[in-house]
Amino acid sequence: MTTIKNNIITRDYPPEPTLRRLPWYLAYVDTLKDQGVEHVSSTTISSATGVDSSQIAKDLSVLGIKGKTRIGYDVDLLQTTLRSFLGFNIEHSTILIGAGSLGQALIADTGLRRFGLNIVAGFDINPEVVGKKIHGVEIHHIDSMATIQKSLAAPIAIIAVPAAAAQDMANRASAAGVKALWNFTPCRLHTAPGTVVQNTSIYAHLAVMYNRLIK
Amino acid sequence: MTTIKNNIITRDYPPEPTLRRLPWYLAYVDTLKDQGVEHVSSTTISSATGVDSSQIAKDLSVLGIKGKTRIGYDVDLLQTTLRSFLGFNIEHSTILIGAGSLGQALIADTGLRRFGLNIVAGFDINPEVVGKKIHGVEIHHIDSMATIQKSLAAPIAIIAVPAAAAQDMANRASAAGVKALWNFTPCRLHTAPGTVVQNTSIYAHLAVMYNRLIK
Repeated sequence: MTTIKNNIITRDYPPEPTLRRLPWYLAYVDTLKDQGVEHVSSTTISSATGVDSSQIAKDLSVLGIKGKTRIGYDVDLLQTTLRSFLGFNIEHSTILIGAGSLGQALIADTGLRRFGLNIVAGFDINPEVVGKKIHGVEIHHIDSMATIQKSLAAPIAIIAVPAAAAQDMANRASAAGVKALWNFTPCRLHTAPGTVVQNTSIYAHLAVMYNRLIK
Repeated sequence: MTTIKNNIITRDYPPEPTLRRLPWYLAYVDTLKDQGVEHVSSTTISSATGVDSSQIAKDLSVLGIKGKTRIGYDVDLLQTTLRSFLGFNIEHSTILIGAGSLGQALIADTGLRRFGLNIVAGFDINPEVVGKKIHGVEIHHIDSMATIQKSLAAPIAIIAVPAAAAQDMANRASAAGVKALWNFTPCRLHTAPGTVVQNTSIYAHLAVMYNRLIK
């Protein structure tokens, strides 16, 4: 939402916790749709997702959706609006930096494509993968990234390289015009202001799980 | 750490934020080790990871590690202690529930094994994968999970099924003796108290990234 106040244009970002909850509601609404359910109350969404029903109403109001008294939310409308608000209904061009084990796994995961992530090219230094196609995605040498990215103009780069190379790759991706970095390494990346960074530290989740199990 | 107070044995879990930061330090220490560096100060770790150096000292004191004045932390000791504290140095038997696109990607990712996660069996209902071996891991029909899990006694189950099946699979895994669920679905799981749940909502990360990019 864009608002103008004192001649300054500001954008209202929904808070990150809200953005993280919305996909939960969508996942539930998707199953309702498959079951042919037409309306759902915030109380029902609440018992399915474990989120307080007043919080749900607040989150959904960010999308401009209101439930009707006694009827609840329209499932169809909720699904369409959530998908579109979350950006899952359009394709986001993405380059993959690091086509090793994890990178190849990400290319193979069709779920990402269903959620709008379209990996259009991969980059690596390993001669065993450079020049090959993996699930239809061509892997180039990392040194040609700047040139190729110039024509691709992909807004997103996935960083799936060994930890020691992560910062260098982040710098090179940013220099090549990438606006968002999806960082799968356990490294903290330093980026210029305005660059979007999302950290998916799979291994950090493992640490929490092991610790709670063992101790 | 186990302490006894008023005749009640309690366990001190390190807080989750600490547990999530420790792998960042480890990733950095790993690169130092590769470079032959022998000592590192909390200030240096701080500029690499972006965590305040007093927070780093506090986090590492949970592990019983102290830096020496002017010398800093011993890199070797730090690496070994972090790996062992995080549980990355031992194998954790894990069953995979859902051997579709994402599940197969997780089997393929050798990084997980390096961090101690050992997928010993997979389960699915799809006749195209049941009975096959994927990267050495045999995929069984989900109906044989209870029986097979009885002999495997795997403490961890990965839930990588479609959202609509997630809760049912979580129930069946818990009934079969699984202690921790690593949930890759966007569903909130309801579990008995004592069950460890870690949610890795890859798609929720996408939502945040898209939103920050587009709006």
